[in-house]
Amino acid sequence: MTPVIFWFEFASTYSYIAAERLRAKHLHPPQVVWKAFLLGPILEAQGRSSSPFDAQPAKAAYVWRDLDRLAAKHGLPFEKPRSFPQNGLLAARVATAFPDEKWLPDFVCAVFHAEFAQGHDIAETETLADILEGMGLPSRAILEEAVQPETKAALRRATEEARALGIFGAPSFSVGHELFWGQDRLDDALEWAQHSHHP
Amino acid sequence: MTPVIFWFEFASTYSYIAAERLRAKHLHPPQVVWKAFLLGPILEAQGRSSSPFDAQPAKAAYVWRDLDRLAAKHGLPFEKPRSFPQNGLLAARVATAFPDEKWLPDFVCAVFHAEFAQGHDIAETETLADILEGMGLPSRAILEEAVQPETKAALRRATEEARALGIFGAPSFSVGHELFWGQDRLDDALEWAQHSHHP
Repeated sequence: MTPVIFWFEFASTYSYIAAERLRAKHLHPPQVVWKAFLLGPILEAQGRSSSPFDAQPAKAAYVWRDLDRLAAKHGLPFEKPRSFPQNGLLAARVATAFPDEKWLPDFVCAVFHAEFAQGHDIAETETLADILEGMGLPSRAILEEAVQPETKAALRRATEEARALGIFGAPSFSVGHELFWGQDRLDDALEWAQHSHHP
Repeated sequence: MTPVIFWFEFASTYSYIAAERLRAKHLHPPQVVWKAFLLGPILEAQGRSSSPFDAQPAKAAYVWRDLDRLAAKHGLPFEKPRSFPQNGLLAARVATAFPDEKWLPDFVCAVFHAEFAQGHDIAETETLADILEGMGLPSRAILEEAVQPETKAALRRATEEARALGIFGAPSFSVGHELFWGQDRLDDALEWAQHSHHP
């Protein structure tokens, strides 16, 4: 079976819904790989704003209502954060530094939860330290690893890989070169991976 | 039960998929109402291009691939038209002039089929006349009715109603003031309508 890569961006509301839905399926590497990337540089390279909803009030109003409904549908807490979009760089670096850890999905979901249900600012080191400590993990060592040059370079590579795959939004899923955009397409991506006879 | 209004735009690829999926469910008024509108004036009033993909090559490439996959998944023929987006004004007027006819869903799907599977230009009166004749309908009388001032005014009203509901893309579904955007949300909209205890 070809692995499904789950591309998430910590600033993205729909990435939160996708992460929780995917975690509930208990699929692990090599079947499913969780991969953080930064959407901002990709949008900027395309000449687009990193807050595309700013210019589209009707779409923005829809999206917040849609998130309320989606969260309720999947039994997830959701509260529109006071600051949006948030800076998820440090969280993305933590996720990038520990791609093979079993705690990665729990960490990712806890960050999204802090951001979109608890009103915390995920740009704060303390927010992430609290999450890691709450999971019984050595926050100080992990956060140090997250800012090493190799980690920063790995996140830049992941973002470049996402761009090269044609990713233009988050969340996305890739199966080989097949791309699926949006949390709505989670099941389509998993199904695609199961049919390796696809070209 | 609150009716589900299916808002489609003849230039929209995903409206084609939604129309075929909805037709297969055999739901009729008052349960489901098919309503044509024009997305162009709504986008223009928001200062957006009526061809939003022009500025986003990565998204455009994704969308055509996605449509191939979606059409295959739902057993529908699909071929990228040489001219896109097409002018669906006359087709929308036909749909607007005959909102209560049992043949409306068949006509709508036949127009989408001509556009997205058979390589025809739906802006041509002859394309629509051929479709209507093929359905055993009096094409001349229908096309005359479609260009009456009352029909033109009704389509403008429908478009204004869509804008007032907050519609910013096609297809959309509305249940009272609840809005669902995209063919992916067809089932969510139908489910919402069935739970009239929703606020």
